[in-house]
Amino acid sequence: MPDLSSFGEEAVVARLTTLLEAGPGILIGPGDDCAVVEGGGRGEVELLKTDCLVGGVHFLEEAAPGKVGWKAIARTLSDFAAMGGWPRHLLVTLALPGSCEMRWVEQLYRGMNKCARAFDCSIVGGETSSVPAGAPSMISVAGTGTAKRSQVVLRSGGRPGDVLFVTGRLGGSLRGRHLTFTPRLVEANWLVRNCPLHAMMDLSDGLARDLPRLASTSGCGFLLEKDSVPRSRGITVEEALCDGEDYELLLAVPARSAKRLESAWRKQFPRLPLSLIGSLTAEGESDLSGGWDHFAG
Amino acid sequence: MPDLSSFGEEAVVARLTTLLEAGPGILIGPGDDCAVVEGGGRGEVELLKTDCLVGGVHFLEEAAPGKVGWKAIARTLSDFAAMGGWPRHLLVTLALPGSCEMRWVEQLYRGMNKCARAFDCSIVGGETSSVPAGAPSMISVAGTGTAKRSQVVLRSGGRPGDVLFVTGRLGGSLRGRHLTFTPRLVEANWLVRNCPLHAMMDLSDGLARDLPRLASTSGCGFLLEKDSVPRSRGITVEEALCDGEDYELLLAVPARSAKRLESAWRKQFPRLPLSLIGSLTAEGESDLSGGWDHFAG
Repeated sequence: MPDLSSFGEEAVVARLTTLLEAGPGILIGPGDDCAVVEGGGRGEVELLKTDCLVGGVHFLEEAAPGKVGWKAIARTLSDFAAMGGWPRHLLVTLALPGSCEMRWVEQLYRGMNKCARAFDCSIVGGETSSVPAGAPSMISVAGTGTAKRSQVVLRSGGRPGDVLFVTGRLGGSLRGRHLTFTPRLVEANWLVRNCPLHAMMDLSDGLARDLPRLASTSGCGFLLEKDSVPRSRGITVEEALCDGEDYELLLAVPARSAKRLESAWRKQFPRLPLSLIGSLTAEGESDLSGGWDHFAG
Repeated sequence: MPDLSSFGEEAVVARLTTLLEAGPGILIGPGDDCAVVEGGGRGEVELLKTDCLVGGVHFLEEAAPGKVGWKAIARTLSDFAAMGGWPRHLLVTLALPGSCEMRWVEQLYRGMNKCARAFDCSIVGGETSSVPAGAPSMISVAGTGTAKRSQVVLRSGGRPGDVLFVTGRLGGSLRGRHLTFTPRLVEANWLVRNCPLHAMMDLSDGLARDLPRLASTSGCGFLLEKDSVPRSRGITVEEALCDGEDYELLLAVPARSAKRLESAWRKQFPRLPLSLIGSLTAEGESDLSGGWDHFAG
């Protein structure tokens, strides 16, 4: 019997998605950073997202619980950034062994609350469950938010000739930044107001895996100038492409807007680099490989 | 160091909830069956809920995956029923071992989709993650929905003198019904339109545990006529009170409305019993005990 590891994450998600029947009010279903549905205020849409952290996969059980909590919320917030929206209400599901220390859970919750409040959103509910002895902790965070209907950015809107930018510096996240990163909500909301974005996503599995996703969802190939990829200190190009958990933004922008964007960005965010790393093509191939697959053997 | 099992689920949730800061737009935060926030259409509010199933806790790994999927969705839907609302969009988080068979996951998803569509709602997104080898499967379902602002029913609205009803028959759910039950959405939505409900909740942990919750949240005691508790075939009173996973509705109604409710209910739902099982009191005690605590030793 074929198991999940023989398919890989991408194929698993693709197969499961075909089993779902869509109902009314759904503008964008599974496959983008958030689902987009009718809702929100006048001129708005509602964004929905769920995410999870598993002990031993996304964090080590000995990691500081406050940071694990920050990460659990920040990962979900990062997906709202990727759509050009803003999160509002969050739900937390905790599945923990009974032997888990109360202090650990309290610190976890403090970290979650701190991240939520830092971005003006609130944890409004949750669910706790036990897991069998010896099983890892699991934290799932679901969120609702809104975006201006005219400003929602999908992964699929890239066009041949668009230039590609990334925010920040990539690679080396496991040295600590994967627990403390800033979701790029402020930057993404500035971008949708100040630049004709064609496509955007957040980088969670590594540029080597995420860039091909954006390109293929947009029906494009891509060219990547590897030497232009901004790297964290002491990180090789290979690591910058494949380490994953960067939670930076990848965006596709009409080539004619690139210069103006670069200049406006520098004024607005002088301390955060925005780097031109390549372009989308009509058809293309790349020697990119690597990145993180959840079910690969 | 005190661990979760030494506190018990109730105390864990109570402590964590105090660590959260509320933001704007929240009408009802943690503690009820759903959170209630500003949103939805004119005259409506938005309901938010998350829930989860853990392998070995909420289902056996050898259970039919289609039924596990049905249960995962139906549990969340049951919480929308408990508020007098209706669910709309669902998000699914799967944390599964790589050794999980693809066919198992497909059947799981088919069961989830079947339940969602049976109640006019849609799975609009999800997240998949691996878990370490040997760890149990985990399925978290979050949902959004709406209720009429004037018809939302909380756990906390019960008043001394109210009479208590339950739908269906209690106990013995583990013989199979916990995987195939019908969330009482139709019944709850009829109730909010046809009866002045003071309080309502769905029974997940057993009447012996859930009734005291409803009473204490309402600032009341309660009297339970144990012999009036409707029991599944071959089930003792003790089992009916403590087995849990009934997913029936418990409601508190002004005593003067009881007769009219019973008669209208019989016409509307002739095959589903509605049983008067007791009343709320100004102060009260009970010999009730048992039910399911997630972190109890």
